[in-house]
Amino acid sequence: MSKTFTHKVKVYYEDTDVGGVVYYANFLKFMERSRTEMIYQQLNLNHNSLKNDFDCVFVVKSCNIKYLKPAKFEDELLITAKILKKSFVRVILLQEVKKKDEILVTAQIELAITDNNGKVKKLPENLYKKL
Amino acid sequence: MSKTFTHKVKVYYEDTDVGGVVYYANFLKFMERSRTEMIYQQLNLNHNSLKNDFDCVFVVKSCNIKYLKPAKFEDELLITAKILKKSFVRVILLQEVKKKDEILVTAQIELAITDNNGKVKKLPENLYKKL
Amino acid sequence: MSKTFTHKVKVYYEDTDVGGVVYYANFLKFMERSRTEMIYQQLNLNHNSLKNDFDCVFVVKSCNIKYLKPAKFEDELLITAKILKKSFVRVILLQEVKKKDEILVTAQIELAITDNNGKVKKLPENLYKKL
Amino acid sequence: MSKTFTHKVKVYYEDTDVGGVVYYANFLKFMERSRTEMIYQQLNLNHNSLKNDFDCVFVVKSCNIKYLKPAKFEDELLITAKILKKSFVRVILLQEVKKKDEILVTAQIELAITDNNGKVKKLPENLYKKL
Repeated sequence: MSKTFTHKVKVYYEDTDVGGVVYYANFLKFMERSRTEMIYQQLNLNHNSLKNDFDCVFVVKSCNIKYLKPAKFEDELLITAKILKKSFVRVILLQEVKKKDEILVTAQIELAITDNNGKVKKLPENLYKKL
Repeated sequence: MSKTFTHKVKVYYEDTDVGGVVYYANFLKFMERSRTEMIYQQLNLNHNSLKNDFDCVFVVKSCNIKYLKPAKFEDELLITAKILKKSFVRVILLQEVKKKDEILVTAQIELAITDNNGKVKKLPENLYKKL
Repeated sequence: MSKTFTHKVKVYYEDTDVGGVVYYANFLKFMERSRTEMIYQQLNLNHNSLKNDFDCVFVVKSCNIKYLKPAKFEDELLITAKILKKSFVRVILLQEVKKKDEILVTAQIELAITDNNGKVKKLPENLYKKL
Repeated sequence: MSKTFTHKVKVYYEDTDVGGVVYYANFLKFMERSRTEMIYQQLNLNHNSLKNDFDCVFVVKSCNIKYLKPAKFEDELLITAKILKKSFVRVILLQEVKKKDEILVTAQIELAITDNNGKVKKLPENLYKKL
């Protein structure tokens, strides 16, 4: 359905831990940055406009993440995002963390949609079509 | 096999995001704190002694996490950890984030074992028995 | 004026960086945890009650922090907080990070008061007296 | 002495807190990203080469930070770094966080130099000249 979106991330001190590698929770930050940039660049929207114009907030419902290889300090990473499946109540993405052509981390992320008050809702038709 | 270990966490400013709830990646921090405390309190070990005395580092290989309900600013949470399955090369844990009796987040975490240089290894017999 | 308040923090993986020590920004997290606990335990309040009952939010205006010695993975730290000076528009705290009796980090933190909309305001008389 | 270096940062979910603004400790992350990029782009070095080729690690000794205005979710910020003063044992930087022409946060950062084992040392002559 969708093309694979790619966002670059460099690994800074803040991302690493005493093990000398990227701390496991921080890959979820990188993945969210990539999703956010996909919304900016592919949909020409941002979270504020989704909220204000569509009364829509995307919330993560589940995340199945596999750590294949560590990422290191000062690595330049590519964080991809690709919509695998969408319905009016769920969007499923495949996200990968790559170093050149090598896949370091892979995740399947499931998003639900709520209104500004956190109540579950359906994607508006016009927004659904844009995805 | 193992009893359920429980660790308390209070939600501070640092854990929240603009949505008014705990940022999704931060639950993985809470879960690691609980695993670390389990090692301290149930095994009477810590990461430094695992490293220095057993040449063992636990690394997260995969994480299947489900977000059922949001946690909020200043919530007092219970983070549980329970070993579901163990072999000499894998330890599988079930971890939950609870607010009183309500389960907010649940995750299955798979750990592998490496030596200090990051090379995969088997759990030493004496450490395996302790788990 | 105020007694020195002390809050315990253990250093987990999430707090460290590739240098093997606590990442410099993370001491500000530890200090905020201590300030928050001081509000809970000395004033019997929390941020939500300050907001809802007093229409008051404390915001950090400045922070002068000195790093004397590094804190390490699995260290058990004491984070102190002591009000040095207060007026109706400013509260100045001295905060220290200690390992046993050794001071690792010291900071002077200046707080201002705003209402829920971020507008600067004076401390209500009854709240001022409590501090 | 040095030109002002500027690094762009966008504010993502991970950077914000329940107050709807960037969490105060996170500006120190942004500032370190800018210092790191200055080393890459102005000096053609990185932390790994500093460590391996010069046996040098820069460590933050003090940080005097003033918060003038809040930064918000999805803001596009400019993080500047400028060397104010340097000696063989200290480098003092002025760093600012700007939104267009408006200064939101300003900090004076003092760096010391250690070898790979954390022992204080002088800047090597050739590295000093590059700064």
